[in-house]
Amino acid sequence: MKKVGIGLLGLGTVGQGVANIISQPKDRHPLVGELELVSVAVRNLKKKRDVSIPDSILTTNPTEIINNPNIQIVVEVMGGIEPARSLIIQAIRAGKSVVTANKAVIARHGEEISNEAKAAGVYVLIEAAVGGGIPIIEPLKQSLGGNQITKVSGIINGTTNYILSRMDKEGVNYAEVLKDAQILGYAESDPAADVEGSDAADKIAILSGLAFGGAINRANIPTTGINLLEDIDVNYARKLGYGIKLLAISEKGETQPTSEDSQPLSVWVEPTLVPEDNPLAGVNGVNNAILVEGNPIGQVMFFGPGAGSGPTASAVVADILNIAGIQSMSEDKIFNLDPLLSAKGWRSCHVAEKEQITKKNYIRLIAEDSPGVIGEIGTIFGKKKISIESIVQFDAKDKKAEIVVITHKINQGQLEEALLDIENLPQVKRIASQMGCL
Amino acid sequence: MKKVGIGLLGLGTVGQGVANIISQPKDRHPLVGELELVSVAVRNLKKKRDVSIPDSILTTNPTEIINNPNIQIVVEVMGGIEPARSLIIQAIRAGKSVVTANKAVIARHGEEISNEAKAAGVYVLIEAAVGGGIPIIEPLKQSLGGNQITKVSGIINGTTNYILSRMDKEGVNYAEVLKDAQILGYAESDPAADVEGSDAADKIAILSGLAFGGAINRANIPTTGINLLEDIDVNYARKLGYGIKLLAISEKGETQPTSEDSQPLSVWVEPTLVPEDNPLAGVNGVNNAILVEGNPIGQVMFFGPGAGSGPTASAVVADILNIAGIQSMSEDKIFNLDPLLSAKGWRSCHVAEKEQITKKNYIRLIAEDSPGVIGEIGTIFGKKKISIESIVQFDAKDKKAEIVVITHKINQGQLEEALLDIENLPQVKRIASQMGCL
Repeated sequence: MKKVGIGLLGLGTVGQGVANIISQPKDRHPLVGELELVSVAVRNLKKKRDVSIPDSILTTNPTEIINNPNIQIVVEVMGGIEPARSLIIQAIRAGKSVVTANKAVIARHGEEISNEAKAAGVYVLIEAAVGGGIPIIEPLKQSLGGNQITKVSGIINGTTNYILSRMDKEGVNYAEVLKDAQILGYAESDPAADVEGSDAADKIAILSGLAFGGAINRANIPTTGINLLEDIDVNYARKLGYGIKLLAISEKGETQPTSEDSQPLSVWVEPTLVPEDNPLAGVNGVNNAILVEGNPIGQVMFFGPGAGSGPTASAVVADILNIAGIQSMSEDKIFNLDPLLSAKGWRSCHVAEKEQITKKNYIRLIAEDSPGVIGEIGTIFGKKKISIESIVQFDAKDKKAEIVVITHKINQGQLEEALLDIENLPQVKRIASQMGCL
Repeated sequence: MKKVGIGLLGLGTVGQGVANIISQPKDRHPLVGELELVSVAVRNLKKKRDVSIPDSILTTNPTEIINNPNIQIVVEVMGGIEPARSLIIQAIRAGKSVVTANKAVIARHGEEISNEAKAAGVYVLIEAAVGGGIPIIEPLKQSLGGNQITKVSGIINGTTNYILSRMDKEGVNYAEVLKDAQILGYAESDPAADVEGSDAADKIAILSGLAFGGAINRANIPTTGINLLEDIDVNYARKLGYGIKLLAISEKGETQPTSEDSQPLSVWVEPTLVPEDNPLAGVNGVNNAILVEGNPIGQVMFFGPGAGSGPTASAVVADILNIAGIQSMSEDKIFNLDPLLSAKGWRSCHVAEKEQITKKNYIRLIAEDSPGVIGEIGTIFGKKKISIESIVQFDAKDKKAEIVVITHKINQGQLEEALLDIENLPQVKRIASQMGCL
């Protein structure tokens, strides 16, 4: 078998992890020994790196990789939207298959890239884009294909899970843990994409497209991060028997499409109370876990390291081997994308209106410490036909009470209306926080 | 695309689950709609079943399926060694790809079947043979291929996990829970294969072959089931902060092969104490969980329903789609087995001698309640250079003491020697039980 030529766009932590695997094939799948790192595009030729790569294969010009006839698979591990997106498309047009870990590009330009790949007859594989080293893309595309998937949910951002785990276990506040996480390398110096939930929204957009067979508009996903989370809510949640996790969820919900045209999906990202006996409650630190529910499988969970050089490189190499394996079957002719291996959709899907989402809620209100206030709040919820699981009043001091309401599964449109009425009660000062609840 | 013809050997719970999925393709992967159930071999044509299959496609003669030119994929879901093994081989020789859920056949005759498949240029896929609906075979073959796998372990028998969960949570004894499990359909009327550990040994033999790239001799796996487990050990374990799970383990261990000839693997099945904070501790009821450890991925876990009609059928259909997808790529020409999709090994492996296994142990001794006995036991372990984590004496009554020893990770050969010496102590009546410990 002729060696399969690999070109790397980027040599950061993930790129170095990939180079390490390729350069040490012993005890790995034998196809790893058939890979050859032909060329690596970097920004700085002189930078010191933890991997021994001959200077002769480094280049600062990514186009050299795209046009190199000895490269069959281009691996994009530079991150960011541009020039990553343009380089992926150029590589596809040059007849190369592409492996990418770039969730931001795939979540926003996945359809465009999929169409380009189909037209060019090459593969674009994205295992590393979600869940780090956890095999989740291939299982969703292949191993669970016999199921009617009803829900995909989970913890898919390691940075925020690290922060939340420490806030929960040690009672440290958000700002302090974030600073620690930055020092330890678990959070970037600009942590916005992680802590504001946009990274998780990118990933749930990708998982949703694979699980339900059609891309959704990434921009329409209601997203709340953990950057405004107060420790007091972590405390109250714990007292009520819950931990808080940043969950990303995509589910079919009860609303069925009126026509065959487009499947509405309830998709959202938000800090969520997780009961202690839920399998997600035990997922701590930088780990990720993805739950997939469907018929007839019931529920399966995939758990593991959600980020980091090694795990992400493991997923990148999985995709490389997948393409190399297909090529070896067909003696170097690359096949057209088949429906199982491609990210190509088979139906149209869209993000349901936020008001259509049905879920449990945690709401914290600041109110006057007057005996009638819980009754008044209960009455408003009753009038709006919102069923309540619990109302608890916490430490009333300075004539101020903190009231925590946990609802049953309710329609969010109804909830918004009720909350407007509650905010207008003279005894209620403000709605201090609002989260999901499992 | 021409429909892909499916022939079923067997129409028990799994076979009916498969037929149900194929007959209701809506909301599943579009390839499900391209499958056609052509013929089904059953033992009794008149038996009532929960699935509507036209009588015209039922047959009592499995050879009809093997020789039917409209069938491309033969699905063996009859179970048992024979005639299942012979029918699988006949189907392969007739040029059909085979999907099977039969762990007993694959664990014992996997190499023979793999060689037959290679010679005939067809696929044999086995996702349903381990872990029910949990995708574990494909991830091991594909998604984790970039890793140097060091260990595969887990809970891979749902029947025993159901029994152990109830013994632990409710304090009910083994015989009673087994009876319940039989009434509920979680255990068979002859439960031997499950409770004596042989089903778990079949499955770890299969996982081990995929993880380490070479088949081991199934007959050499040291196997202890839960059929002799006493409630007293469940109680003591709980007091020490552990639950008990029937674990199947295959690991490379520290002994490296002296030549390149054969890789020794420490493989065993045994009831094992699991600390409460271990991810396996939370796996209860009929669920399964498989942990895979390797470099550079670290640790990933796959969790879900380990048995049952729907989950197992989900895995069978995954394999059917996989083969159908490859056929659709290649316009009905079936390719030679490629290393990624086949179960073909790339190195030789063998089960290490039991004495070579290094692990933690739980040992319960019955001894006289005399003040010197713990000292004597400790001295013997010390002489044999066996490091002890704890020795605890439980309820001494009738001049009889129960002593529980938990060792550090030690060589089992050394342990056997020490236990012989301990049994010869005049104060020691007997070694009442011995288990693994994580």
